[in-house]
Amino acid sequence: DEIFNVSDHSHRRRNPLTGDYVLVSPHRAKRPWQGAEDAPEPKASEKYQRDCFLCPGNQRISGDHNPQYEDCFVFTNDFAALQPFVPEASSEDPLFSYESATGVSRVICYSPDHSRTLAELNPEEIERIVSCWQQQSAELGQHYPWVQIFENKGALMGCSQPHPHGQIWANSFWPNEIRKKNIHQAQYFAQHQSNLLLDYARSELSNGERVVEESEHWLSVVPFWAAWPFETLLMPKSQQISDFSGISSEQRGDLAAHLKALTTRYDNLFECSFPYSMGWHHAPFDLAETSHWQLHASFYPPLLRSASVKKFMVGYEMFAESQRDLTPEQAAEYLRTVSSQHYRAGA
Amino acid sequence: DEIFNVSDHSHRRRNPLTGDYVLVSPHRAKRPWQGAEDAPEPKASEKYQRDCFLCPGNQRISGDHNPQYEDCFVFTNDFAALQPFVPEASSEDPLFSYESATGVSRVICYSPDHSRTLAELNPEEIERIVSCWQQQSAELGQHYPWVQIFENKGALMGCSQPHPHGQIWANSFWPNEIRKKNIHQAQYFAQHQSNLLLDYARSELSNGERVVEESEHWLSVVPFWAAWPFETLLMPKSQQISDFSGISSEQRGDLAAHLKALTTRYDNLFECSFPYSMGWHHAPFDLAETSHWQLHASFYPPLLRSASVKKFMVGYEMFAESQRDLTPEQAAEYLRTVSSQHYRAGA
Ligand SMILES: O=P(O)(O)O[C@H]1O[C@H](CO)[C@@H](O)[C@H](O)[C@H]1O
Ligand SMILES: O=P(O)(O)O[C@H]1O[C@H](CO)[C@@H](O)[C@H](O)[C@H]1O
Repeated sequence: DEIFNVSDHSHRRRNPLTGDYVLVSPHRAKRPWQGAEDAPEPKASEKYQRDCFLCPGNQRISGDHNPQYEDCFVFTNDFAALQPFVPEASSEDPLFSYESATGVSRVICYSPDHSRTLAELNPEEIERIVSCWQQQSAELGQHYPWVQIFENKGALMGCSQPHPHGQIWANSFWPNEIRKKNIHQAQYFAQHQSNLLLDYARSELSNGERVVEESEHWLSVVPFWAAWPFETLLMPKSQQISDFSGISSEQRGDLAAHLKALTTRYDNLFECSFPYSMGWHHAPFDLAETSHWQLHASFYPPLLRSASVKKFMVGYEMFAESQRDLTPEQAAEYLRTVSSQHYRAGA
Repeated sequence: DEIFNVSDHSHRRRNPLTGDYVLVSPHRAKRPWQGAEDAPEPKASEKYQRDCFLCPGNQRISGDHNPQYEDCFVFTNDFAALQPFVPEASSEDPLFSYESATGVSRVICYSPDHSRTLAELNPEEIERIVSCWQQQSAELGQHYPWVQIFENKGALMGCSQPHPHGQIWANSFWPNEIRKKNIHQAQYFAQHQSNLLLDYARSELSNGERVVEESEHWLSVVPFWAAWPFETLLMPKSQQISDFSGISSEQRGDLAAHLKALTTRYDNLFECSFPYSMGWHHAPFDLAETSHWQLHASFYPPLLRSASVKKFMVGYEMFAESQRDLTPEQAAEYLRTVSSQHYRAGA
């Protein structure tokens, strides 16, 4: 009788943070591509662009002028999805349930230099971004239970603005994903008297096959339950950290170098400015007991097999569950094999 | 003091079928568009194409030839994501949990005519597609607990094949979305002694502001909890129907005309061949008691404000929760206002 083998046979893997499954179809990785191809991401080459809304000194849509900033620069989104003042209202009707929502949406320019993405900034510059995330979380966390730090990079991810930047949205509620991750981490903690992602990091370190990048304090893997082809999870290696306030300055420097190495591997994979959405999760700020939480970032890149062929999360994925062809172990091997030195010399 | 108003103030709405929320930011609908624009969907004009894998008589990648089919034609996907025979295996490890998965993936060609999409077929042709869904569900439902019928339409939805077709994937497990919808419909039934979507249809009919299309037996609305800008939900108007086997021949004819009218409204909205993913949900086949379930279809179209500007479900949506600008009521009004006669004369 044939023996089951994760690199040949279809199977489902469970995401312990959300309780959701992903369908893995490894035998399908060899199908020919007939779908849409997108143009590779264009790369900005000028350090300053006159018509960029984010370059220092330039005028934004709102009419405001950006200052002549020198490292990170944070401002309120000119078309914020969340507003600080909304009349309170809610309905518990089981079919028409709603609640009013408040918050703020900010933009964070990573650097005055229009032409360099996270992968091409130097570690000192990246460390200033991490510091900025720490300050923003501390400030907004006093007023809001949740602060979502994220970056949409590249036109494929709905961002046509090449100037390196991310976003910071604070809100008055726990979003869906946070609610789920809180429940699953709390259940794991209650059952095992230990932290889910800390136990997970320990296992992945000892096993090694899904490891992409390892530094003194941080670990990046293609998680066992990855939905996107080259999804990665970045987490502390051996210490529980509830949120950004728990990062020491030594850990911050190490995180900056780690982020540079990881995003460089992405750029090197298909020799392009690799598109992705990146987001940070951590304990909500109104939670008293946070030992079940672990600070972590996820990268969800849309590319599948080249700079122009992406994975579509459509019909089956939307109505049933996520499906992938390449196994997480294969994806990790690709990312581990490419260099952590950027392919564009001098970057 | 200002009074809360769903068309001005940000709020969250709850999807009673999944328990998830969507953030609505109506004040944001007026922001200027600077993001990527996709080329409008190309429209096939030839009834037969020599190099199409799906046209009658043509050879597929597998080497097989399609028969000279005259209405619907179903075949097994040449690169199926699911296979009927996989050795059994599973692990309950809380961090590395998996199970082997079996199933089949089939393709359903809607018509031998390469050039006409669902909106442009005539009601008799569409009724044959519905009959085919009924036969396929009945056959596959004897062996598998779940059969996912869906269609990815248009290059924006990962489908570069303009020949009108959908897919049918059967599998050995309840996918994530089905597990969630089963739980929420069962809870509602236990609490209210009535069917969730039947109560919902009744409310929407009496209110009217989210109704898009109403026929003798079926109702389409932009649901109160819609995540995609022009998402619609198609369901029975006043009768509980567990799955495709419960549709009478009269209801089937009415459904065909309803599907034509709804997809025609979509094409007319931006005068293009409107892209979407469409999927059917119904009671799983291994469920003994199904009175809490209601058969329904959802359409998830990616377009936001023109044939070339789409909504990106990226950073905040992936890491926090879905966000929309246009309210469901506004979207329903647009779809209700356009004609249900196709803009391409003679189609
Ligand atoms: O089956 P197709 O058309 O080759 O593939 C398309 O639909 C599938 C099911 O939704 C997805 O998994 C693929 O990513 C998408 O490209
Ligand atoms: O905020 P931006 O860059 O204008 O918009 C982008 O990111 C947002 C947050 O993920 C999404 O809601 C938008 O659909 C996307 O285009």
